[in-house]
Amino acid sequence: MSAARLIYLPLGGAGEIGMNCYVYGYGPENKERYILVDLGVAFPDMDSSPGVDLIFADIAWLEERADRLDAIFITHAHEDHVGAVGHLWSRLKAPVYARRFTANIARRKMEEQGNDQDEVHTVEAWPETVSAGPFKVGFLPMSHSIPESSALVIDTPAGRIVHTGDFKLDKTPLVGEPFVPEAWSEVSKDGVLALVCDSTNVFNPNAGRSEVVVGPAIESLVKGAGGMVVATTFASNIARVRTLAEAGRAAGRSVVLLGRAMRRMVTVAAETGIMSDFPHTIPPEEASQIPRENLMLIVTGSQGERRAASAQLARGKFLGLSMKEGDLFLFSSKTIPGNERGVAKIMNAFSEMGVNVVDDSGGLYHVSGHANRPDLQEIHNLVKPQVVIPMHGEHRHLREHVGLAAETGLAGVLAPNGTMVELTGNAPKVVGYVETGRTYLDGTVQIGAMDGVVRDRIRMALNGHVTVTLIIDENDEPLGEAWCEILGLPETGRSRTPLSEVLEAELEQFLGRADDSLLADDGKLSEALRRNVRNAANSEIGRKPEVTVVVSRLAQ
Amino acid sequence: MSAARLIYLPLGGAGEIGMNCYVYGYGPENKERYILVDLGVAFPDMDSSPGVDLIFADIAWLEERADRLDAIFITHAHEDHVGAVGHLWSRLKAPVYARRFTANIARRKMEEQGNDQDEVHTVEAWPETVSAGPFKVGFLPMSHSIPESSALVIDTPAGRIVHTGDFKLDKTPLVGEPFVPEAWSEVSKDGVLALVCDSTNVFNPNAGRSEVVVGPAIESLVKGAGGMVVATTFASNIARVRTLAEAGRAAGRSVVLLGRAMRRMVTVAAETGIMSDFPHTIPPEEASQIPRENLMLIVTGSQGERRAASAQLARGKFLGLSMKEGDLFLFSSKTIPGNERGVAKIMNAFSEMGVNVVDDSGGLYHVSGHANRPDLQEIHNLVKPQVVIPMHGEHRHLREHVGLAAETGLAGVLAPNGTMVELTGNAPKVVGYVETGRTYLDGTVQIGAMDGVVRDRIRMALNGHVTVTLIIDENDEPLGEAWCEILGLPETGRSRTPLSEVLEAELEQFLGRADDSLLADDGKLSEALRRNVRNAANSEIGRKPEVTVVVSRLAQ
Repeated sequence: MSAARLIYLPLGGAGEIGMNCYVYGYGPENKERYILVDLGVAFPDMDSSPGVDLIFADIAWLEERADRLDAIFITHAHEDHVGAVGHLWSRLKAPVYARRFTANIARRKMEEQGNDQDEVHTVEAWPETVSAGPFKVGFLPMSHSIPESSALVIDTPAGRIVHTGDFKLDKTPLVGEPFVPEAWSEVSKDGVLALVCDSTNVFNPNAGRSEVVVGPAIESLVKGAGGMVVATTFASNIARVRTLAEAGRAAGRSVVLLGRAMRRMVTVAAETGIMSDFPHTIPPEEASQIPRENLMLIVTGSQGERRAASAQLARGKFLGLSMKEGDLFLFSSKTIPGNERGVAKIMNAFSEMGVNVVDDSGGLYHVSGHANRPDLQEIHNLVKPQVVIPMHGEHRHLREHVGLAAETGLAGVLAPNGTMVELTGNAPKVVGYVETGRTYLDGTVQIGAMDGVVRDRIRMALNGHVTVTLIIDENDEPLGEAWCEILGLPETGRSRTPLSEVLEAELEQFLGRADDSLLADDGKLSEALRRNVRNAANSEIGRKPEVTVVVSRLAQ
Repeated sequence: MSAARLIYLPLGGAGEIGMNCYVYGYGPENKERYILVDLGVAFPDMDSSPGVDLIFADIAWLEERADRLDAIFITHAHEDHVGAVGHLWSRLKAPVYARRFTANIARRKMEEQGNDQDEVHTVEAWPETVSAGPFKVGFLPMSHSIPESSALVIDTPAGRIVHTGDFKLDKTPLVGEPFVPEAWSEVSKDGVLALVCDSTNVFNPNAGRSEVVVGPAIESLVKGAGGMVVATTFASNIARVRTLAEAGRAAGRSVVLLGRAMRRMVTVAAETGIMSDFPHTIPPEEASQIPRENLMLIVTGSQGERRAASAQLARGKFLGLSMKEGDLFLFSSKTIPGNERGVAKIMNAFSEMGVNVVDDSGGLYHVSGHANRPDLQEIHNLVKPQVVIPMHGEHRHLREHVGLAAETGLAGVLAPNGTMVELTGNAPKVVGYVETGRTYLDGTVQIGAMDGVVRDRIRMALNGHVTVTLIIDENDEPLGEAWCEILGLPETGRSRTPLSEVLEAELEQFLGRADDSLLADDGKLSEALRRNVRNAANSEIGRKPEVTVVVSRLAQ
């Protein structure tokens, strides 16, 4: 039997900012016991995943070994860390551990997907630990943009790993626990094998700013406003939501929470004791009784999401409320790369209504939840690990983070999704590659990103679609003409004749000269019809459409 | 007969950054003579215009009045100002005027679309002018990120208009003409009726920086590089392209221009006398003979365009050249909002190759071509117009720019696309709204954005597609079963049976209970088949697909 080894294997999150999913294993090769850290989602976009509802890491590798998976740990309640728990749990069936607030969110997700809530166990903060196979795991409180975010202190027979989760260095986070440097020194004092570390803001050269700095700026903005004030931020950023609410109260305004996620997060924060002092709010239906200059709405949709409250207000009324000339709309948020178009669309819609739109371009109304470059160095220095393994980043972030570690003489391992790193032995080394990828939640079905389903949709979006139907009679002769139905294509092109007629005329000519052997072979006939349609369309409208051919034979 | 009036009517560009298209008219109502300023394109995206090749302003209003259009003036050779000239000229048929470099580009575009190059006339700079009906128009040289960009001085019987085109305040632009404040004072000294003004950077609070600042930083970066150096910027930014080439030469590297647009722009700049001193370059085929540490490639694709040189290098080889570990890739450019995903994809691909990717996030390697907020104020102050009319911006930019004008006591008019503003009379006033919109170049066909073609494509991308075919015999009875072919949908769903079989079974049941009158009515039958397929799919895969139904009747 081979010696026990300690491995690290990211299945998601090390190659994108999203769908975090990290495996640790300990034991003899192929007999390792595993734990999983985080089980999050990524979000689809029209460019690469139209129609998709959610994106998960492909967990096939772990599913095959689920009998050796001892536990799932969730660092915090952001969707990219907890969002897939409900959808994927039944393929893994290991107990889930999280702190109170996170566990509350995870239980809701389990329930929504028909899983047993009791599989989610609430854990107290470090120094309490959970034993899972050869691992002992503790939740070290850390500041981020959601309450109870935690680093994991993972003890193994081979040594200690510190997995940061998402974090920033905030000693005054307003809600939730602060960054306590002494706690990090303490857990690191006997040596840390590996620091597995958030890389999101590695390209930002400035030290991060505390949540405490945005309050006064927001308060002064709200106090100076004339009409209704509406502000948006991530609902899970409870500290910010409270800051917004307090600014509204300070300006003598009644506060309304709009959007399901906004109300749910505030409720969960109250239920779990995270926050007991949220300002008084009124329900939306009472807002219409109040003069608009006395109202402050806090709404979902900081990323321009089509169904969120901000987008609904941009399109018109939402729950009886609407924006008017002279109102103020504040984005107390950063636009995540890729969401710029959606956010700009909402800003312009408000601008057309005469609403004053304010965002963070001046750096006043938002601070990031992630550690910047100097903050990462501070953590490196506190932990002084034998190796830094960057995670939570695109490839370029991971690469930059390895470089950053090198600047202070620390070894770094660039381990994108699927890279199995052994941490036992003299130095960390890559011992294998696992096939990884993405699983799409598509409607109610999980499909593979490479199954071709989404590829076909993208092709239809780019090229349009033609349906060709042809009936072949008992003598293997065409019965009547082939019909063409177009969808997503111009009605007429070069010849000004309807495109479907042009295509049908082309197929009539083709069928007139087709020989018997071709007409008798469904496969060859379909392929020939498809080719003729694509070429005829190309010469008529400059585009080769996707084609579905249905040949019906009347009898054998 | 009513008195003559002077009108301004943006058909494109005042509501987006792109597809610039501004009409000026003078004369009695409905008998005005017109000139058009710029005829540009906007670029499609997957979210709103999948498969579309280019976007033009809808010029239907002007086309109906083309007999009263006396001239088309092009301020500069950027695609969003000149890109539609070839495609739309035949619908307007008025002489085109531009300065030498711009005219050269415009002629190529006319020729590509089969129009007569001689319709494009070269104009010298102000104080030379062109008479066009009641207008006299001069090209006032101005700095921007392309040579020969010009403001237009438009004299009318009612007074002078200054139309800025795109500009920045650069007294040392390296290539092309500098900003000369005295020239702006001079043209403004007898009073300016309206300043129609670029709004792109109105949200940037800092004074703009000169092109001259980027050279030393780029040179030091290139000199410090080990492997091959590749840099990208907009090909039309001739000054930047030359700066990059000079940095390469200064570091003792052979310079290669990669990408058609890159080579074309440098050629045109040489041909038109804009730039006579471009460093020596070598053709790509000679590059393979040279050690990579002695090479500097300047390539197209700063916005992540799929077919440009940068993207090709990110996917592998391009013209025999490829990137390797230790090479440097420089984005000497800004990512235009909406292009972030494409650019990040390329950056990550290079990161995976071990290439060191550098962009302008530190503010060292790029300067904008547009006037920032303080620069706009400087122009307002130089021109002191009776009214500022913001253009070249989304609605929020125009609105902000009106507010900026107000800060220094200037009247502003918020006139988005389709707003007809009368400039004669005591104060400018909105006298009408014209229906505007977008025309898509789709393959080789021009279609309206609202024609439903693209809407159908987006629906197929989001929902997938099912083709249903059914044959009805001579007795109005189904002949065999209905067939379903799926495209862009999961193969199986809830029941684990192939989706097409589930749908066919559903239709079989439905047809079994369908009455004669339904079977005899093509419209009702098709609608019923569609509804059944959508509902069955929804319960099987949680998604209602687009459906094409083809019912074939064997005889009447």
